[in-house]
Amino acid sequence: MPVKVFLTEDEMPRQWYNLNVDLPVRNPLLGPDRKPATPEYLGTLFPMNLIAQAISTDRWIDIPGEVLELLYRWRPTPLHRAVYLEKALETPARIYYKNEGVSPPGSHKPNTAVPQAWYSKEFGVKKIITETGAGQWGSALAFSCALVGLECKVYMVRVSYEQKPYRKMMMETWGATCVPSPSDQTKAGRDILSKDPDSPGSLGIAISEAIEEAVADKSGKTKYSLGSVLPWVLLHQTIIGLEAKKQLKKFGEKKVDVVIGCAGGGSNFAGLSFPFIYDKINGAQIDIIPVEPTCCPTMTKAPFVYDFGDTAEIAPIAPMHSLGHTFVPPPIHAGGLRYHGMAPQVCQAIVDGLIEPRAVHQKECFEAAVLFARTEGIIAAPETGHAIAATIQEAKKAKEEGKEKVILFNMSGHGLMDLKGYDLYFQGQLQDYAYPEEEIYKALELIKDLPKPQLAKAGS
Amino acid sequence: MPVKVFLTEDEMPRQWYNLNVDLPVRNPLLGPDRKPATPEYLGTLFPMNLIAQAISTDRWIDIPGEVLELLYRWRPTPLHRAVYLEKALETPARIYYKNEGVSPPGSHKPNTAVPQAWYSKEFGVKKIITETGAGQWGSALAFSCALVGLECKVYMVRVSYEQKPYRKMMMETWGATCVPSPSDQTKAGRDILSKDPDSPGSLGIAISEAIEEAVADKSGKTKYSLGSVLPWVLLHQTIIGLEAKKQLKKFGEKKVDVVIGCAGGGSNFAGLSFPFIYDKINGAQIDIIPVEPTCCPTMTKAPFVYDFGDTAEIAPIAPMHSLGHTFVPPPIHAGGLRYHGMAPQVCQAIVDGLIEPRAVHQKECFEAAVLFARTEGIIAAPETGHAIAATIQEAKKAKEEGKEKVILFNMSGHGLMDLKGYDLYFQGQLQDYAYPEEEIYKALELIKDLPKPQLAKAGS
Repeated sequence: MPVKVFLTEDEMPRQWYNLNVDLPVRNPLLGPDRKPATPEYLGTLFPMNLIAQAISTDRWIDIPGEVLELLYRWRPTPLHRAVYLEKALETPARIYYKNEGVSPPGSHKPNTAVPQAWYSKEFGVKKIITETGAGQWGSALAFSCALVGLECKVYMVRVSYEQKPYRKMMMETWGATCVPSPSDQTKAGRDILSKDPDSPGSLGIAISEAIEEAVADKSGKTKYSLGSVLPWVLLHQTIIGLEAKKQLKKFGEKKVDVVIGCAGGGSNFAGLSFPFIYDKINGAQIDIIPVEPTCCPTMTKAPFVYDFGDTAEIAPIAPMHSLGHTFVPPPIHAGGLRYHGMAPQVCQAIVDGLIEPRAVHQKECFEAAVLFARTEGIIAAPETGHAIAATIQEAKKAKEEGKEKVILFNMSGHGLMDLKGYDLYFQGQLQDYAYPEEEIYKALELIKDLPKPQLAKAGS
Repeated sequence: MPVKVFLTEDEMPRQWYNLNVDLPVRNPLLGPDRKPATPEYLGTLFPMNLIAQAISTDRWIDIPGEVLELLYRWRPTPLHRAVYLEKALETPARIYYKNEGVSPPGSHKPNTAVPQAWYSKEFGVKKIITETGAGQWGSALAFSCALVGLECKVYMVRVSYEQKPYRKMMMETWGATCVPSPSDQTKAGRDILSKDPDSPGSLGIAISEAIEEAVADKSGKTKYSLGSVLPWVLLHQTIIGLEAKKQLKKFGEKKVDVVIGCAGGGSNFAGLSFPFIYDKINGAQIDIIPVEPTCCPTMTKAPFVYDFGDTAEIAPIAPMHSLGHTFVPPPIHAGGLRYHGMAPQVCQAIVDGLIEPRAVHQKECFEAAVLFARTEGIIAAPETGHAIAATIQEAKKAKEEGKEKVILFNMSGHGLMDLKGYDLYFQGQLQDYAYPEEEIYKALELIKDLPKPQLAKAGS
């Protein structure tokens, strides 16, 4: 029995799937004037050929040949059958996982970093600026800019810059510049430093610095880039689910019952699940589950509102489940899941009842990830641990029900740069954090005057 | 044009290649009595089914089905064409590399760790003890014991244990016990600590502790394991070269001109090259190049002698190029290449003129590895940097000669746990070390009374 299935280059998907076309309702992004963001406004931040993807009405969007060739450096990624985990759980379920950890930067992030770099170069961009928290996105963009031949600068949240020096070294090895944020290189950074010279930084501040430097170059040769949330990011990630479908067929599976991914900004979950949401819209019975930390319960507890993408209120305003853009989640080790908002398309799918979010506590995730490491042999990122925990819950449910379910989850990245979390887990020093309800309400108070998104199609 | 070729499970090699059968001369290992080591003596250290592989007269040895299934967790590994590196070098050569960095522990080491764990379990072993320096081998064995279901204990050189805590955390995540050496758990360790409580440890001391604990269990349920040098280790690694041959054919290559691997104990080099040495013995024209650090010039400067495998003179005595078992190489970042000896089969191939060793300095290796990272996108281990440096030398030579050569090298592991070396390189803080000739002669003086190995077949 095979435990892993590859695809050849010829079998690699040639098009991305654009879920926008199939969502009943689409609320637009808003600009600083709180009106629908115009392409002109978005064009100050992003190259126009990416913006075109966000407003495209095509269900299938061609992947350019040169992008395919770049993706082929590490794709298609293998689809594994988790036979050893199944045995350990004594479940009748067949569990499959897509291994996105085999990319050189170690996660799914280059699936969009590579096309973003390529489209930027096509558009005449010479330099891309971004921010990064824990470092996964920054290293993926540094890698992609090296392959394509673009300059790359990354503002990295200072506390992560100091705690995770290896991520900075990765970016530098790929030729990028990595600056701890707040820095003295932007007005936003200098303002913070003048008030608090020892500021540990935040993703919100780093976004402000990256955007400020990008828009300051009026030649249009410098653009800003984001690693999740935006429509083209999610579009590029759909290659994960499209490959997985072909590979499940090679395993002889005719249907899948449960699809699971962890969700911080939503991109790895969207990448695996959107092609299956397409099937669901067309009549398939599939439980599709995005998984988040209990202490940062964006999807399971927060309202669907319009809110800012960043703390400093510079980024576009997005329709999403939001804990409020000033909300600071507890310091769990899954840094990639500590975001106050969620990709609008994922939120719209929740509102429309297409997917069923779930929250799990950190210790359950590490317990699941350790079982996964000791059976399947792969050390997963703490973020991915959330998907594994939900998978184990579903496999146990299948056992109770005596059902031969097919469960598919996204092994979104390896945890070789995140071993400190495992170490603390073994030492019994990890804690589960309560859902900080009061703080969330305080944070939401700040956006009560923003417009409200539409919930259902007019007249429906 | 494809830039990467996979194989399916069905195409995976079913047998390992045993070079011993084709070497004109074989000098045996010696036991503590300085006479050819008997299976009984070796059996106190290793399970007998592995020892049987060392003395087998079969050219091809079947890979058990269960081992194949375990290897299939991450194998076959991809063979890449280095199109971006070729472009950067403007070489007419076609460069290929086998990517062993995709294994969960990140290197070629599990190719033998998995079968060693499996054969040990078959033989009734319950616990495997080993030592590790930088941690690659220890984490590969921990991974393998988790998959097979064996207890695993690793004595890790204390200075590495403290400098590279992530390696220890990897081993613990896979359920192994990792102890800094010297420890108070063995007599050998206690002896050292009583003289020097702050001893940083050494591979020699760690070997002594691991062997002492393994042989102390008279039930036979505890065995010792080694990650390089020994015949069955090299045998298991030949899957690399056997896969590469099939993949080169898929790329349409009819022959290969140059085969390159870095060599510390010799296992990754042997794994790639032995199947090509077989072709060379049968008439093919191939330059086969093991690459070592200039400051630890085992193959390029040291004599072919009998010497101990470890500093403490406990391990078997092996016929090999040796810098002397008390030689301590300068502190280069390629920790896996800092060994005083070399696998006997590799040395025998040098003596027989089948392969041509080469030495390179550390800074050239990091320069080569940075170019590789920025063109091919993969951050290689510092050890692998030696193979890349020699590959670039050969690609430049092909350009000078105007020849369309086919060059194949082993990308033996990723460097995500070794980024400190890259960082020091960028800071201009790396140095090249001179070949410490005098120290080597002092170290060799200690073994002048050991027997001398046979150089050529009697009568030839």
